[in-house]
Amino acid sequence: MATTPPRWQEKAAAKRQAIFEAIPAQWRIQERLPSDDEQPDVTGKYIQQYLTDREIEITECDALSITERTTTGAWTALEVTEAFCHRAAIAHQLVNCLLEIFFDQAITSAKALDAYFAEHKKPLGPLHGLPVSLKDQFHIKGVETTIGYVGWIGTFEGQRKLETSARTHESELVRELRNLGAVLFCKTSVPTTLMAAETANNIVGYTWNPTNRHLSAGGSSGGEGALIALRGSPAGFGTDIGGSIRLPATFNGIFGLRPSAGRMPYEGAANTMDGQNCMLSVVGPMATTARSLKLLFKAVLLQEPWYHDPLALQLPWREAVEQQAARDRLCFGIMYDDGKVQPHPPVKRALALVRRLLEAQGHRVIEWNPPSHQTAFDIAMQIFHLDGRADIQAHLALSGEEQRAECFLQPSEPQNAMQIAALNIQKRQYQKEYLVYWNSTAALTGTGRPVDALICSTCPYAAFLPGQYKHGDTPFVNVLDYPAVVFPVTYADRVVDKAERPDVFLSEMDEVIQSQYDCDVAHGAPVGLQLVGRRLEDEKVLALVEYVGRLLQKDTQST
Amino acid sequence: MATTPPRWQEKAAAKRQAIFEAIPAQWRIQERLPSDDEQPDVTGKYIQQYLTDREIEITECDALSITERTTTGAWTALEVTEAFCHRAAIAHQLVNCLLEIFFDQAITSAKALDAYFAEHKKPLGPLHGLPVSLKDQFHIKGVETTIGYVGWIGTFEGQRKLETSARTHESELVRELRNLGAVLFCKTSVPTTLMAAETANNIVGYTWNPTNRHLSAGGSSGGEGALIALRGSPAGFGTDIGGSIRLPATFNGIFGLRPSAGRMPYEGAANTMDGQNCMLSVVGPMATTARSLKLLFKAVLLQEPWYHDPLALQLPWREAVEQQAARDRLCFGIMYDDGKVQPHPPVKRALALVRRLLEAQGHRVIEWNPPSHQTAFDIAMQIFHLDGRADIQAHLALSGEEQRAECFLQPSEPQNAMQIAALNIQKRQYQKEYLVYWNSTAALTGTGRPVDALICSTCPYAAFLPGQYKHGDTPFVNVLDYPAVVFPVTYADRVVDKAERPDVFLSEMDEVIQSQYDCDVAHGAPVGLQLVGRRLEDEKVLALVEYVGRLLQKDTQST
Repeated sequence: MATTPPRWQEKAAAKRQAIFEAIPAQWRIQERLPSDDEQPDVTGKYIQQYLTDREIEITECDALSITERTTTGAWTALEVTEAFCHRAAIAHQLVNCLLEIFFDQAITSAKALDAYFAEHKKPLGPLHGLPVSLKDQFHIKGVETTIGYVGWIGTFEGQRKLETSARTHESELVRELRNLGAVLFCKTSVPTTLMAAETANNIVGYTWNPTNRHLSAGGSSGGEGALIALRGSPAGFGTDIGGSIRLPATFNGIFGLRPSAGRMPYEGAANTMDGQNCMLSVVGPMATTARSLKLLFKAVLLQEPWYHDPLALQLPWREAVEQQAARDRLCFGIMYDDGKVQPHPPVKRALALVRRLLEAQGHRVIEWNPPSHQTAFDIAMQIFHLDGRADIQAHLALSGEEQRAECFLQPSEPQNAMQIAALNIQKRQYQKEYLVYWNSTAALTGTGRPVDALICSTCPYAAFLPGQYKHGDTPFVNVLDYPAVVFPVTYADRVVDKAERPDVFLSEMDEVIQSQYDCDVAHGAPVGLQLVGRRLEDEKVLALVEYVGRLLQKDTQST
Repeated sequence: MATTPPRWQEKAAAKRQAIFEAIPAQWRIQERLPSDDEQPDVTGKYIQQYLTDREIEITECDALSITERTTTGAWTALEVTEAFCHRAAIAHQLVNCLLEIFFDQAITSAKALDAYFAEHKKPLGPLHGLPVSLKDQFHIKGVETTIGYVGWIGTFEGQRKLETSARTHESELVRELRNLGAVLFCKTSVPTTLMAAETANNIVGYTWNPTNRHLSAGGSSGGEGALIALRGSPAGFGTDIGGSIRLPATFNGIFGLRPSAGRMPYEGAANTMDGQNCMLSVVGPMATTARSLKLLFKAVLLQEPWYHDPLALQLPWREAVEQQAARDRLCFGIMYDDGKVQPHPPVKRALALVRRLLEAQGHRVIEWNPPSHQTAFDIAMQIFHLDGRADIQAHLALSGEEQRAECFLQPSEPQNAMQIAALNIQKRQYQKEYLVYWNSTAALTGTGRPVDALICSTCPYAAFLPGQYKHGDTPFVNVLDYPAVVFPVTYADRVVDKAERPDVFLSEMDEVIQSQYDCDVAHGAPVGLQLVGRRLEDEKVLALVEYVGRLLQKDTQST
């Protein structure tokens, strides 16, 4: 006797189908898709086959190039929007990266922007006509938000039933993006609960790495990462409470900024464990170039989010902080491992490459020996477990779906006010120790000031097979609340990046991680690093990453 | 049979005696002190009798005037320090305002500053030679910190025994003040637990209002308030989590700034319920003039606290924000009552006076109808009760002393992570509603922008009899995290401020509060108000209060 699938599976299937059906028929891929083995890499030439030359031209521009054309009337918002809608539709069919598709609304917006330009002979704002994708935490009128929970389908954050047509609430970021002239067209996939380093949910399934579809796109902003890597969106916004912008940026070969808390507006967005305030999740841009991150970050600040989001800080874009990156002689800290785990060969090579390029420009690079990142990791894990999973279990229970394996939250007891206060003190003390360490580097830099930034890996992997993510070095940034930008450096190469047994293992975990490396599996995967600055110096890290990105580009062109 | 007092009473008495004995013998008042009835007001002429003309000249200057002389060599740090030590010693004997006296250390510091000036022909910093008093939460080498707990005597924060000579830890603010050239000379009294609107502990007893010693000096920075009102210190620093700077500033007729969180460094200071981070206590200056608040605030920012305190924000003094107060036409919101309780007649008169003066200058004043301040009050009270008094009970238990009646914390259950998260969301929603309301006033101001500031009372009282504080309107500022400055307006007058039965009572509490008013009891008490600005616009509220203060001064001189 055949058993009927549980009701939540039906709901999920219906939603999955609805997402697919939001793709116009002419953009649905009719032929059989190749398997991962047949076609692991679906970027570049592969996805281009579905597009016209003009669509390729448009979608392979970065966000800044696009706005240079759409804000001057060289390109219409409509043409740009349609090109990205098409490419995003293909991307979704290749790697499962979208949770919401609303191309109709996007095209209506684009037409209105074109009409505005025709009438006023000027753009609505600095993002006029730029398609921007959003992680599925942001509310948009007429569009659902599920953050991957089956129980949120057809409701407002699982709290009450709500027809799509009745959805009028918009997150503050959405309001600001509209004011700036951006065109919203899709929302990207997330792991159910958001607490995962890879992206999978019971609605659209697993989001694959477009460069190598055996591998993960990372998480939790993995839909964003994969979509942008496929140029299905020029830029978007993710969120990061433990690495959720930086890990997908790393694995997808794109740029991603985890800003300091309070720079970008989170107001009115859906979240996991909302109200947990020991360590805040932050909103940040992801894009194909560093200058595009700056474009988006700066544009949002023009909207003065601090007058609309009570947690946003009154800090406009500060040229003076940006200019600190323009000095002739800089000094960087570099961290080859986090003391517990050594990175895989491609990541080691990336660190060495960046060091060489910086030193060749006359900058100093010193080794970074900070307060233990493991301590920060433990603090972050305690914070993630404060409510003993009460919030996520309540949301899973709405539909009856189970916690997926990707979610790293373990069963635990909810903490009380005294335990939380003690943890806040522990965190503050760690932050203080790190400040003291950072200040102390002034004696080593030769510049008369402490290091300008730290460069380190986000995790040992180039990219990883589903279920294989065991360790990373992103949460220290969240504990410290420092700005950090991930930038792409190179690609894993089976010839150059041979597996080598390290002379020593730093820990049992190191031994496990090293045994995971297989140069054939990693081959072709993007390799990224993170550049970390001092708290609230987001302008400086963006400028430094733009600079490092130029050095890398020159190096690639010369070799 | 006589019973022996409990051991904690002996320890408290010994500490009380040690504080007294830190006063040089020649500064101890030998004659019988008049009773409160004989001499309620010990400010002005009364305290002057103990001082030389030169000491009066020095101590009746404000902090800015003093630094104008000490940073130019016109006055020595030593002479200024000795004058304030003397006056502070008298003040303590009159109103019980000090918890730590370390004049020897101050005189050593002053001599070192004079030697520095002699050698370098320039001051050490902008506060060179300025005596600065501190609430007894800040750690200073060679000095105890008890925050009023008997159980902290002879220990470091109650955690371990520590001889005074072994105390080397200094709070970040203390380090910065030393760098700026300030002279630290005493620490001021606080209510045990800090959670009280008046100041009393089992060590030095009750801190009286110097203008009327029947009345309270307020709390929790009540020692600061009383000391500065008596000109025993030109300026000092208190802390405020629910009104603890603003209430004593109000009752003592001085100025006090509750800054936005993150402007002034709290790092390394003792606190009650440390680690509670739903609503942070903040450090702020208290002084006899608005310009002195600015002097201290600006000076501390020059030390870049954000590189030393992980919770401090990278926000130097911003002239542009200050300049927003210099516009010809401003608009103020005014709130005559908080919707629950009407202020007493002297406070009503103060509000009417300030309105009249502002309107006479061509500014607009509009009535303020914000989201309920009662909601904010309830949120604040929930935050104060998060740990169910676990922290304070642990500290009280160290000595066996009981919770004093002044402390408003009631028995309650500790909250868990889910309850705290829900409260954080409630607070954020309230903050958002208030932002929306503030923005909405742009339609009413006639300036094209929302109100520049709100003016309202801090509580219904001019000042109050011990145990009589029942209601106040300070915590909404903490919930919102807005900067607020208290400024003195007038004095209660038994002739002008007759008790009048209001037409209506706003609540049962209003009826209670109105019945408390007695124009004879209040007579002579200072009346202050608060001016509240937008989050992080501390520069603007300081400039506005300086302006309002000038209008009030001119008005006083002309009548």
